[in-house]
Parts: sequence; C-alpha cells; structure tokens
Amino acid sequence: MNEIASNGNMKILRLPTVKRLPTYLHILKRLEQEGHEYVSTTALINELDFKPILVRKDLVFMGIPGKPRMGYALKDMIAAIESYLGWNNTDEAFLVGVGSLGHALLGHKPFEENGLKIIAGFDIDPKKVGAVIHGKKIFHLSKLSEMVKRMGVRVGIITVPWQEAQHVADVLVEAGIWGIWNFSMVKLKTPPDVVCHNESLSSGLAVFSVKMNKMRDSH
Amino acid sequence: MNEIASNGNMKILRLPTVKRLPTYLHILKRLEQEGHEYVSTTALINELDFKPILVRKDLVFMGIPGKPRMGYALKDMIAAIESYLGWNNTDEAFLVGVGSLGHALLGHKPFEENGLKIIAGFDIDPKKVGAVIHGKKIFHLSKLSEMVKRMGVRVGIITVPWQEAQHVADVLVEAGIWGIWNFSMVKLKTPPDVVCHNESLSSGLAVFSVKMNKMRDSH
Repeated sequence: MNEIASNGNMKILRLPTVKRLPTYLHILKRLEQEGHEYVSTTALINELDFKPILVRKDLVFMGIPGKPRMGYALKDMIAAIESYLGWNNTDEAFLVGVGSLGHALLGHKPFEENGLKIIAGFDIDPKKVGAVIHGKKIFHLSKLSEMVKRMGVRVGIITVPWQEAQHVADVLVEAGIWGIWNFSMVKLKTPPDVVCHNESLSSGLAVFSVKMNKMRDSH
Repeated sequence: MNEIASNGNMKILRLPTVKRLPTYLHILKRLEQEGHEYVSTTALINELDFKPILVRKDLVFMGIPGKPRMGYALKDMIAAIESYLGWNNTDEAFLVGVGSLGHALLGHKPFEENGLKIIAGFDIDPKKVGAVIHGKKIFHLSKLSEMVKRMGVRVGIITVPWQEAQHVADVLVEAGIWGIWNFSMVKLKTPPDVVCHNESLSSGLAVFSVKMNKMRDSH
C-alpha cells in the first residue's frame, strides 16, 4: 500500500461513502486553495459534519496512504477521488424540462466543475424555446432526437413532470443516450444497458423533517 | 397490530427508509388520484425503482397492517407517512441566497405540498432585493433578523456561497431559527438545540457518475 489505490481499493466503495466524496472533494480543494499541502485526519474531521468514525472508515476505504506526522497529501486525495468518480473527464449532457428545477440545474456551477457539462436544454413551452438560460440555449423537444445523434451526447437529465418522463426517456434512449439522471419521481422503463439514476429533492426534506420533529418537543 | 402504528413502529425508521418515504408518498397519492383504494405489495414494487426486498422491509418497518387479498389502504398509508414526517403540518421558512439554486427552491412546488412553505427570500444583491420570484418577495439580508423575530419563522434554508454560510447561520440562530437546511457544502457551527441538515446536490451526481463508470466499458 505505498501507492494511491485509485483503481484498487476505491472500487469497493459503498454507496454512503460515494455520497460523501463530493463533500470531501470540496473541503480538500478549499484547503489546497488556502495553500495547504497535507491534511490530518483530525483536521479533516473538524471541517466535516460526518461522524469521526465514518471519516476514518472512508479514509481506509479510499486506500490513500498517509504520511506519519504529515497526514494525507491533498493533491493525491483530490486526484484519487476525481479519478474514482470520473470527474477528471467531462460528460456532455442535455437537460429536458426547463421548469424551476431544470432552470436551476442549467446554472448549477458545481456540476460543470464535477465532470457534467449541460450544453443545452429542451422544452415544449413556446415561451422557453429559443431562450438562453445561464448561457445555454433552449430547443424544442422535437429537435432532441436529431441533436443527440448528431452531437453524440450520451447523458440526459430529466426534469419534466412525471406524466411526461417516460416519453422523454424513450426519446433519449432511442437517440442513443445511455445515462439518465431522473428527477421526475417516476420509475422509468429503460433497457438494461442504460444507466438510470433517480433523484428526489424531497428525500433530503424528509430527513430534515424527521430531525426537526425529534427536536420540536424541546422548543 | 390492528391499528396504524403511525406513532409506534414508524419511530424506529432507519435513515435509508426515511429517504424513500417521499417516493412512496408520491406513488400512493397518484394511485389514490387514479381512483384506487388499496395497493398490493406486488403493485407497489412494480411502481418503484427500489429492490423488492427493500420495499417489503420498509412496509414492515412502517408497521401498517395490510388486508388479505386487498393489500394496503392508500388512505391509511398516506396518513401514516405524512404524520411520521410531520408533513400534515406546515412549517414556514425563509430562504437566504437567491442564486440559481435558491431561485429554484423558491419555486419548487413539492416542498409546499410536503409541509415546507418558503414565504420569502433574502439576498444582498441590489438587483434581486425587491424582486418577486415565484410569488415570493426578496428582501435585503439586513432585514432577516427582525423579520424572523416578528413573524416567528423557525426554519431557514441556506443557499449562499460557502464563504457566507456561517455568517448567515449565526444571524438565523440569533434571531430564533432552530431548523436549518444547509445547501452550502460547509459545516456550520450551531448550538446543540438547533437542527442543521446538510444537503448536497453533488452527492446524487457522485452516485450517478459511479453507475455510469461501471457501464461505460460496455458502450
């Protein structure tokens, strides 16, 4: 274990650890910008809102070797995490459904820094088609299939209402998209060689609500 | 176990189950709107993108009794989940930081349906202060403290850049807020009687990225 196990131990990461990686990355990059070269486990724990035991476990899982009395090299940790997530390469993506959530995702800078570049949006609303939002042009949904094929885009983000999500997914898959990030709260039927990841902002609200309910009695 | 254990078994729910509750709720409400009164475990599994074993476990955890050959009463399940999450009551919230994400959250309808009503936004940008976004007025940050106190708001949503997040949290807590939903990617220092829940859109992107990397070789 004298080298960074970016393609070794990192492969066995469990989902909860994967979900914490962006937060590690954010902190590590900040420390690097502030002129640091190394970070100790203790310092990392202080910067994070995760349980210390989890941070220690995550570091073991990541398989990055620390140096005695120095800690972990920021450069190596950042490279290992970015490599594991594939965020050192950039995927181009189309977003379908320019409602309030779609609007926000078009302008969400961390995505672009993290390997996902949304290059255009699609909608059927004549008031939106032709507009430029956060520097990205909005096209009519009818152009989607041809543009996916022509531009070789492989990732689609679905932010339409749930009633339309399956239709949009069908168009995306037929055109050659094989990665779908689905914000529509509906289970999509897609072929087995298509990656479909469902996201719900309400999941976070549920956890927040439960935490608040526990605290409510004491206020 | 002849009654809905909305305040019994539901209390022991684990975090992964809590995160799935909004998706259950969404499906159950849809089925109810379509005129159904009951749902079977099999039908529920077909509508969801969760592993069948997880759905079966979640149903046991929820402690809602099913009827033989009928399944689960939609009305009872919806009531039990909403009661557990506290979504049958509405909390009023202030949102601080009207960037692209804050803008989207101000207009995100599911929050309002799910017990969280954002009633105003705050920013320091003169171009935003005074505007009305998705029907909610934007005030200058300097008004925050007085408005929290006067209106008795107890929930704050932080969507400012990480550099400003701690200052905003301090103002919120000093004014009497005790629930903070923090989207800023920074660990906030808050008193122990304040609930602080951190959210990161990039966590979902990390999981999506890892799933795509696994599939990439086959494309």
